[in-house]
Amino acid sequence: MTIVTLTTDFGESDHYIACMKGVILQHAPDAQIVDVTHLIQPHDVVHGAFVLRQVFEHFPGGTIHVGVVDPGVGTSRRLIAVTYEGQVFLIPDNGLISLIHRDFPMGQLRAIDNPRLFRPQVSSTFHGRDVLAPVAGHLAQGMHIENVGPVVEELEILNLDRPTLLPNHGIEGQILYVDRFGNLISNISETDLSALDTGGRALSVYVGPLRVGPLRMTYGEVAAGEIIALIGSTGMLEVAINQGNAAAQLRASPGTIIVVR
Amino acid sequence: MTIVTLTTDFGESDHYIACMKGVILQHAPDAQIVDVTHLIQPHDVVHGAFVLRQVFEHFPGGTIHVGVVDPGVGTSRRLIAVTYEGQVFLIPDNGLISLIHRDFPMGQLRAIDNPRLFRPQVSSTFHGRDVLAPVAGHLAQGMHIENVGPVVEELEILNLDRPTLLPNHGIEGQILYVDRFGNLISNISETDLSALDTGGRALSVYVGPLRVGPLRMTYGEVAAGEIIALIGSTGMLEVAINQGNAAAQLRASPGTIIVVR
Amino acid sequence: MTIVTLTTDFGESDHYIACMKGVILQHAPDAQIVDVTHLIQPHDVVHGAFVLRQVFEHFPGGTIHVGVVDPGVGTSRRLIAVTYEGQVFLIPDNGLISLIHRDFPMGQLRAIDNPRLFRPQVSSTFHGRDVLAPVAGHLAQGMHIENVGPVVEELEILNLDRPTLLPNHGIEGQILYVDRFGNLISNISETDLSALDTGGRALSVYVGPLRVGPLRMTYGEVAAGEIIALIGSTGMLEVAINQGNAAAQLRASPGTIIVVR
Repeated sequence: MTIVTLTTDFGESDHYIACMKGVILQHAPDAQIVDVTHLIQPHDVVHGAFVLRQVFEHFPGGTIHVGVVDPGVGTSRRLIAVTYEGQVFLIPDNGLISLIHRDFPMGQLRAIDNPRLFRPQVSSTFHGRDVLAPVAGHLAQGMHIENVGPVVEELEILNLDRPTLLPNHGIEGQILYVDRFGNLISNISETDLSALDTGGRALSVYVGPLRVGPLRMTYGEVAAGEIIALIGSTGMLEVAINQGNAAAQLRASPGTIIVVR
Repeated sequence: MTIVTLTTDFGESDHYIACMKGVILQHAPDAQIVDVTHLIQPHDVVHGAFVLRQVFEHFPGGTIHVGVVDPGVGTSRRLIAVTYEGQVFLIPDNGLISLIHRDFPMGQLRAIDNPRLFRPQVSSTFHGRDVLAPVAGHLAQGMHIENVGPVVEELEILNLDRPTLLPNHGIEGQILYVDRFGNLISNISETDLSALDTGGRALSVYVGPLRVGPLRMTYGEVAAGEIIALIGSTGMLEVAINQGNAAAQLRASPGTIIVVR
Repeated sequence: MTIVTLTTDFGESDHYIACMKGVILQHAPDAQIVDVTHLIQPHDVVHGAFVLRQVFEHFPGGTIHVGVVDPGVGTSRRLIAVTYEGQVFLIPDNGLISLIHRDFPMGQLRAIDNPRLFRPQVSSTFHGRDVLAPVAGHLAQGMHIENVGPVVEELEILNLDRPTLLPNHGIEGQILYVDRFGNLISNISETDLSALDTGGRALSVYVGPLRVGPLRMTYGEVAAGEIIALIGSTGMLEVAINQGNAAAQLRASPGTIIVVR
């Protein structure tokens, strides 16, 4: 049972996802299909890249990830098959893989370019169903990745801001992602923080102008309703309100500056 | 592994869907269950009929589709099992199958009328769990469809507007469906358009009074933010805004008139 | 194929659920994973307890239910494995099991306390992924429950209001749950009602001060748009508006008083 995951911005009220699943199952009746999410913000490639980066590490080798956040459908943008750690990603070549590509060595990179694998009629607006789904189905049934198309050399990578070191042993990053609970997930990693030379003093975390306190270990260190900064489950610096919504209360969103001193 | 799909208006926050899945899996532990959507507008049979029509063609023969959009639960409306292209639909007899019935030859039609297949106690408000789910489970385990109940002769069909030809080689239809992206999907098919005698001139598409331009092939032909009319992945005439929301910007919704000249 | 269900307040737009599924499938590639819902109101343990209670009876013995509504993550609250009717629940010890515990005899109760089963690095904020998911995966692969940790004696139970008998052969309860359709599900069971000594007279149901009529059998007894009180599919007294939204029209919500005389 090969795992095939789906990450899209299709929402959940239309027929699109089920069409893709039907096509996959026609080729691979035993596939273990996992919905990652279909609520990527429409056309938000950065959101999609973040979610794929988080999810990927928890799946076994051999997993096939189909990602469809594709504002360029119907233009000449390519579809690609690219592998990391023995997992295959079938995606438009628009930067959706950027965060995984930053952190893991790439295996194979191929253009998806073999019409014999596609549905007989390929629409101009739904390559997820007509190209990626049947290719995923074939791969899940054991087809070699060489069959999808030729090796290519380059892929599109998003130009994402990295945290920058500040003069006085500080670091400035930004909010990359806000989750359902309103937790603010930054682009500053645990590794970035350990590299700071603090001279033994405690770190202070600021969201915009607001000091949210020292870096803590766990929600339980503050009372319900209080702000806390900690290394979250993503391995990144996160700011949360214990049992509350930090994004709403701090009026923070992706792009808000976060500073650690 | 028989595929069992679920299409309902139950939403995703309650226990209803999982209750149905539990019942199906008690009978058919290996079933490949696929959620089509549970966000059909409450009691909106037309919405349900549209989604089933889109999804159905992409599933293999033998698939069992359970559809629950059932404003008449607790009245004398029947539950039926009806087949098209070797796929079985278990649904209330309220028109949910209308668009498939219009386009494909019907196989068997039976009333679901065999209480030995049902859950021991059938509630008056949740036939999805107490009747359709166990019947789906039995069928998925190989039970013959004859066991669900007697052949019946008629089924309920919605009276849906069809496009009409206009005097000057034009055609008038309407918006049937608005998807997550705000794309307007009409009831005018590619076949309807090819039948127009245009004398070689290009077609013009209008949504209400607004001319949205000629019929195009792909989103890439217009810039981001521009309106485009094209044959979409449903095979129907669609109006979209490239990377935007046509429903919001054109204030269009199901029922809005669309004309092609 | 062991069934593993997931009930969480994680929402559906983030990576959290897929991370848990990836971890489960790494241990149990053939697991039949069922999403119950991920739209439990954030941190609302009562909502979670209600949904688990409804779902549980419809699953076969051997099912593993993972429940994550966990406002206390990062405090000293325990994680437990507890069994009812041969099904295993892996949950924080915060009352999520209260309604099942009220109605069914408990089997085993163990603390989850065996780090060899956990992910190598356990974050302080995502025990669903780092503890419960791998434990579910191990159990789904056949591991004995004794391995999760030692037997413990007590578990946390919510102090939920029960209906009270009124002087004149009446009963007073409250709305426990409002579903997607706006149906009001009370904490008064069919059994509670049959115990009333009505002297042969019909029962009258009140929501707050409003008389909603007698107890009926099925939606079909009232016209569309009319209020109806009946025993719903949960076995509890429910108040609904036929094809309408009772919560909105009666301005009722969890906690609203409901009286039967």
